[in-house]
Amino acid sequence: MTKKLWDKGYEVNKEVEDFIVGNDYALDMQLVKYDCIASIAHARMLGRIGILNKKEVKMLVSELNSIIVLWENGDFKISKEQEDMHTAIENRLTEKLGGPGKKIHTGRSRNDQVLTALRLYYKDSLKECISLSEQLITSMKAFSSKYGEIALPGYTHTRKAMPSSVGLWTGAFIDSMKDNIKLLNGVFEIVDQSPLGTAAGYGSPITLDREFTARELGFARVQENPIYVQMSRGKFEASILHAISQIMLDFNKIASDLIVFSMPELGYYELPVNFTTGSSMMPNKKNPDILERMRANYHVMMAYESEVKGISGNLMTGYNGDIQLTKEPMLNGFSLAKRSIRIGSLLFMNLRVNRKNCKRGLTEDVYATHSEYNLVHQGMPFRDAYTQVGRKYSGKE
Amino acid sequence: MTKKLWDKGYEVNKEVEDFIVGNDYALDMQLVKYDCIASIAHARMLGRIGILNKKEVKMLVSELNSIIVLWENGDFKISKEQEDMHTAIENRLTEKLGGPGKKIHTGRSRNDQVLTALRLYYKDSLKECISLSEQLITSMKAFSSKYGEIALPGYTHTRKAMPSSVGLWTGAFIDSMKDNIKLLNGVFEIVDQSPLGTAAGYGSPITLDREFTARELGFARVQENPIYVQMSRGKFEASILHAISQIMLDFNKIASDLIVFSMPELGYYELPVNFTTGSSMMPNKKNPDILERMRANYHVMMAYESEVKGISGNLMTGYNGDIQLTKEPMLNGFSLAKRSIRIGSLLFMNLRVNRKNCKRGLTEDVYATHSEYNLVHQGMPFRDAYTQVGRKYSGKE
Amino acid sequence: MTKKLWDKGYEVNKEVEDFIVGNDYALDMQLVKYDCIASIAHARMLGRIGILNKKEVKMLVSELNSIIVLWENGDFKISKEQEDMHTAIENRLTEKLGGPGKKIHTGRSRNDQVLTALRLYYKDSLKECISLSEQLITSMKAFSSKYGEIALPGYTHTRKAMPSSVGLWTGAFIDSMKDNIKLLNGVFEIVDQSPLGTAAGYGSPITLDREFTARELGFARVQENPIYVQMSRGKFEASILHAISQIMLDFNKIASDLIVFSMPELGYYELPVNFTTGSSMMPNKKNPDILERMRANYHVMMAYESEVKGISGNLMTGYNGDIQLTKEPMLNGFSLAKRSIRIGSLLFMNLRVNRKNCKRGLTEDVYATHSEYNLVHQGMPFRDAYTQVGRKYSGKE
Amino acid sequence: MTKKLWDKGYEVNKEVEDFIVGNDYALDMQLVKYDCIASIAHARMLGRIGILNKKEVKMLVSELNSIIVLWENGDFKISKEQEDMHTAIENRLTEKLGGPGKKIHTGRSRNDQVLTALRLYYKDSLKECISLSEQLITSMKAFSSKYGEIALPGYTHTRKAMPSSVGLWTGAFIDSMKDNIKLLNGVFEIVDQSPLGTAAGYGSPITLDREFTARELGFARVQENPIYVQMSRGKFEASILHAISQIMLDFNKIASDLIVFSMPELGYYELPVNFTTGSSMMPNKKNPDILERMRANYHVMMAYESEVKGISGNLMTGYNGDIQLTKEPMLNGFSLAKRSIRIGSLLFMNLRVNRKNCKRGLTEDVYATHSEYNLVHQGMPFRDAYTQVGRKYSGKE
Repeated sequence: MTKKLWDKGYEVNKEVEDFIVGNDYALDMQLVKYDCIASIAHARMLGRIGILNKKEVKMLVSELNSIIVLWENGDFKISKEQEDMHTAIENRLTEKLGGPGKKIHTGRSRNDQVLTALRLYYKDSLKECISLSEQLITSMKAFSSKYGEIALPGYTHTRKAMPSSVGLWTGAFIDSMKDNIKLLNGVFEIVDQSPLGTAAGYGSPITLDREFTARELGFARVQENPIYVQMSRGKFEASILHAISQIMLDFNKIASDLIVFSMPELGYYELPVNFTTGSSMMPNKKNPDILERMRANYHVMMAYESEVKGISGNLMTGYNGDIQLTKEPMLNGFSLAKRSIRIGSLLFMNLRVNRKNCKRGLTEDVYATHSEYNLVHQGMPFRDAYTQVGRKYSGKE
Repeated sequence: MTKKLWDKGYEVNKEVEDFIVGNDYALDMQLVKYDCIASIAHARMLGRIGILNKKEVKMLVSELNSIIVLWENGDFKISKEQEDMHTAIENRLTEKLGGPGKKIHTGRSRNDQVLTALRLYYKDSLKECISLSEQLITSMKAFSSKYGEIALPGYTHTRKAMPSSVGLWTGAFIDSMKDNIKLLNGVFEIVDQSPLGTAAGYGSPITLDREFTARELGFARVQENPIYVQMSRGKFEASILHAISQIMLDFNKIASDLIVFSMPELGYYELPVNFTTGSSMMPNKKNPDILERMRANYHVMMAYESEVKGISGNLMTGYNGDIQLTKEPMLNGFSLAKRSIRIGSLLFMNLRVNRKNCKRGLTEDVYATHSEYNLVHQGMPFRDAYTQVGRKYSGKE
Repeated sequence: MTKKLWDKGYEVNKEVEDFIVGNDYALDMQLVKYDCIASIAHARMLGRIGILNKKEVKMLVSELNSIIVLWENGDFKISKEQEDMHTAIENRLTEKLGGPGKKIHTGRSRNDQVLTALRLYYKDSLKECISLSEQLITSMKAFSSKYGEIALPGYTHTRKAMPSSVGLWTGAFIDSMKDNIKLLNGVFEIVDQSPLGTAAGYGSPITLDREFTARELGFARVQENPIYVQMSRGKFEASILHAISQIMLDFNKIASDLIVFSMPELGYYELPVNFTTGSSMMPNKKNPDILERMRANYHVMMAYESEVKGISGNLMTGYNGDIQLTKEPMLNGFSLAKRSIRIGSLLFMNLRVNRKNCKRGLTEDVYATHSEYNLVHQGMPFRDAYTQVGRKYSGKE
Repeated sequence: MTKKLWDKGYEVNKEVEDFIVGNDYALDMQLVKYDCIASIAHARMLGRIGILNKKEVKMLVSELNSIIVLWENGDFKISKEQEDMHTAIENRLTEKLGGPGKKIHTGRSRNDQVLTALRLYYKDSLKECISLSEQLITSMKAFSSKYGEIALPGYTHTRKAMPSSVGLWTGAFIDSMKDNIKLLNGVFEIVDQSPLGTAAGYGSPITLDREFTARELGFARVQENPIYVQMSRGKFEASILHAISQIMLDFNKIASDLIVFSMPELGYYELPVNFTTGSSMMPNKKNPDILERMRANYHVMMAYESEVKGISGNLMTGYNGDIQLTKEPMLNGFSLAKRSIRIGSLLFMNLRVNRKNCKRGLTEDVYATHSEYNLVHQGMPFRDAYTQVGRKYSGKE
């Protein structure tokens, strides 16, 4: 059964339909569980306010749970003609249950329905990113315990500057990841509002119990204003992607460092050989593809973010069809973030430090600032000490 | 057989491999034909320079043609372990032919191989975009022949300004599409250089006949410098996406106009009902989703462009693993462009103009500039005429 | 006196210097006060740890306060040769005070110095944005008190959907601004860490009292890891610009709505005539330039954000000269945000609602969902009610 | 005299005016000459079609030439109240000449006027970029003549790959710059259309001689369709910025290479000491700020491009006030491009190659591919030769 929810007796032009639906029906396959969970809460609420009787609620809840099981086993499908999961699910409910299926959509619209499913997905995914980041911090700490005390040169402007250490370097990323988690938590709190019950963006002609569904679904509060609910699609998405892009930026920097610091010419850090790849032609190559992909993925995430932000601009309030296209970068963005954090942990569990090369790198110039401060300790004003020591390094020309 | 081309006796960590390969192997499924065509030219050239004998060339050409047929029938597969099409194809050649398969990679690297396959794909796709754009112009002209003479208000600042016409409006997009085609042709010319024979970016220890393969593959010329060949990946891609983003910008504008001009409150243009979609809750709705998706797709294309440009920045010369990630936005970008131009033609074949509403829209204020010029024709300096007529419209406050 | 802080006896090529300094010296004119405040705290700390004696501290504090006064009166200048405010200030201190001037830089580098000045500026500016946003909410509430109860059509897909009201519309933006403030506060908390005392990114050979300077400068805590301090430049900036871009997105939406809703063809909202501009040629025009600029500024802010994020990518840890170029988009971004919020308040203080046009807009189709729910209240399953009412609206074709 | 061109007897709210005008009046200071040149052509055309008599034309041409001289001497000012150069110039003409000044705007609008001035500026600037790029190629060739034959390692994945040479490296950028020039020329051709005479975007009630003004101003052709003329603002700008961003990408790559290749640890290339800068604290530092700024500027240019592209999206045809904000990134973009190409030439005139370090870098592994091809020449199939030589390099683990 592939009746559209908005069927009014005419068929949409096939090519137009293909163009509009795009791969939305396929993307929805990642969200079916969340849509069912939201529908269960909605059905229970319809029971409370007298739209459904107890038996109808029970039938709907049971069938929705069946769909979740089907989906978990890979046996629930959404066809392109059905457009999306909402249609596929309502069609199935009506097919299996008749009347109750035709009542499930009372008091809601796909507009608040998709927002609810997405928001449940975002909340789960944000929590997973936070938990993976905590595991990553654990991996970093283990790495630092093992190698942290090793001294090596610190660089500025890609030039040796002053002495640093593996622990200092790792610690920077640990602290940064902690701040990333703060940012993720801050965004989580903003996102943690229930959109369910705002219908198409202007409320519903019948009075719903929005507090009940919010509670059932574990939202911290109800997002009251229905126009704001619609407005926040695209907007919350942008903040989510921004927050996870900050994790990606850290990986970009880790990778940028390690690509240079593990060049044989410097050799401070080393990847195990089974973390490297070869060339199809040059037998000598062991390439840090893993690091290059980490570096590049920051830009991929930025593209997702700018896609969402671009799509959301210059649109009036009220749902606009444009906003459907933010679903893909969101699903892709979370998937990329999770994969990246996992591979980041793996990296720190396997990364090695070459003590000998680190020591060799600590050439005399790295201690120039220390020489200068020896003069300061002897009472010379800082700027005079700088000038005196500096002469040594400018005369090389 | 899934031996990697760079197999040196160790296995890459499975998670690392998954992370590095990503969905590259799946994306390559769109490019198999081009890689085979390039390999055929390469095999013939190896015959000419004495690396392969005639029989070997014949065997390779024949087997490569078989792979193309298999692929066209959906029977050629690339597994994740094979990483990419290059590996899958070489593995098959070696499996089927033995020795000649092991020789096919002489004088090349995957670096110039993938560039060649992509460039053949780009050239075909650019030509297709140009040809589709020409069909679109034909649709626009037909639309203009039918409705062009109808007068309606022209707007500036989303406010009525002066009289315009359907023909003037359509003509603007026809002219713009012609300039888009110029831009596409300009980019085509730059891209039309053969990278084959530059190996890993520093040439090959054996002398190849690059002119021969360039000619065989229909390239206008050889791209001589091997470092430039590598550098131009990401760079040419950016120019291609920029050029097709200009088509998308036109559609964005067409959509932005029609969304407002087909509001029932104005009603100048009308979509046929089977080009509209409905709401799951509000029975009154007929939504211009097709136009909203056209509008949004401009931002999707911009994201692809900025992804490619972002990935390409701050990288040294010589191949970097980051650049592999430009493949996906390129394939997606061309696919989106082609779909968009096709749907654009369909739109103009079905779009309607409501004469009555256009006429009703031509209110008296639309002719204020004409009143002013009547005074100019009577000899009044322009600025005085402006001030005199202007008084009428400012007095409303 | 224009001696460079890093003078080692050679002169930089003039064109190179111009290229490197760019307009940094001019931008720094906005930050002089913050750099002096940070230097005062640093001088006091140097007193505590025995690098400066009491008299020297007093002289430095007094002269730094004089510079603040000079700057407030527009009498402090930075020349291009001085490169930046740090140099101009240290030069002046040495010129006026001799020895103490030469000691002020003990234990710090321009790297942590500029971070401190910027961070003080960011904190002030974030607070100002929050406070301006609160004033904006007050203006919106006043607007809603005056016009809030007026009903008008709510739109989805730029098509009439269901009844809405001025109060509902305004309320959406009030709620959104409240969430923006949460986001700004969240970013403020992350930014509120003292970088002072981390020197060039690898700490200082002498032990500083970082808790003291953090307290003096009003930072919530010390940002311990010096490598993280450097890494957070570009990173914190991105989060700040993201947060303020969310304010700009709201203005973009307010503007997008009002541009259409104040078209004479709809006429729900009206700008006072002295908020509109005219055409140089068409005497009839009253253009909503103010709204168009609000709409466009979202994209300007996004460009600042992507500039900062782009510059920060693919860089190793440790200070890189690239990052200096993030200063301009930050200063411009805050300036734009503050101007925008102020003009937003002014807009809501002057915006009008046309009751007659709102009423006229509430055509019968806007109540289709209500008709449908009448059938639901009579016991008809929702989907059947939808189909029944829907027939009326699809039959028009 | 600061009368606005659209004065209709009311004053715009001062804060609104400030917000709308922004710094447009200041930016226009770079364009005054072009606006005068276009006005001279327009005045002559008005003479030809009988709107102005010979004496009036002469007076206007003479006064416009005076303004150009004033401007060249820095004596022509535009006040914020005047909004823009168009107003300042027309005000002055009327003040000096009376009647003829009031007639100069006949048949045009600021909309086509600003387009004409900008386009003349773009054409000059594109030509300058092309000419500077040719000088850059000359500098590169001179560099290559001096050092080209020096061999050094070529890198892929930031790892040594195969032997390369300074000449090969420089040649890559020479070829790339030649393709950049092609792209610039292609964009120049598209831009080279006269917008003058399309008035506010819907033509003029009087018949103008557009061929005449196009010829006078040196445009290759008339851009016929007035709606397309307006549409092309933002669109042509995007193509221009894209084209010059490709130059910036090359500099980004040159800088990325040289930053690493001039690390003392590798030392292949060297900057003269007076091209480097120091640290305020670390006396040992000689930093390649020039290269870092070159690298970062690519991202600045991308931000300009995405700003223009973002502003131009989701706008209806006909002039929109948003588009005024594209002026700043265009002026900044050209200024940055010109500065960058100049500094690029200077860089190649001063860059040095360290022969000793290049030679030292050519370690044995760089020749692994050559060993492999020795086996190929002895008749071993390529893949077997790869495996045999490869064993040597994988055994290190």
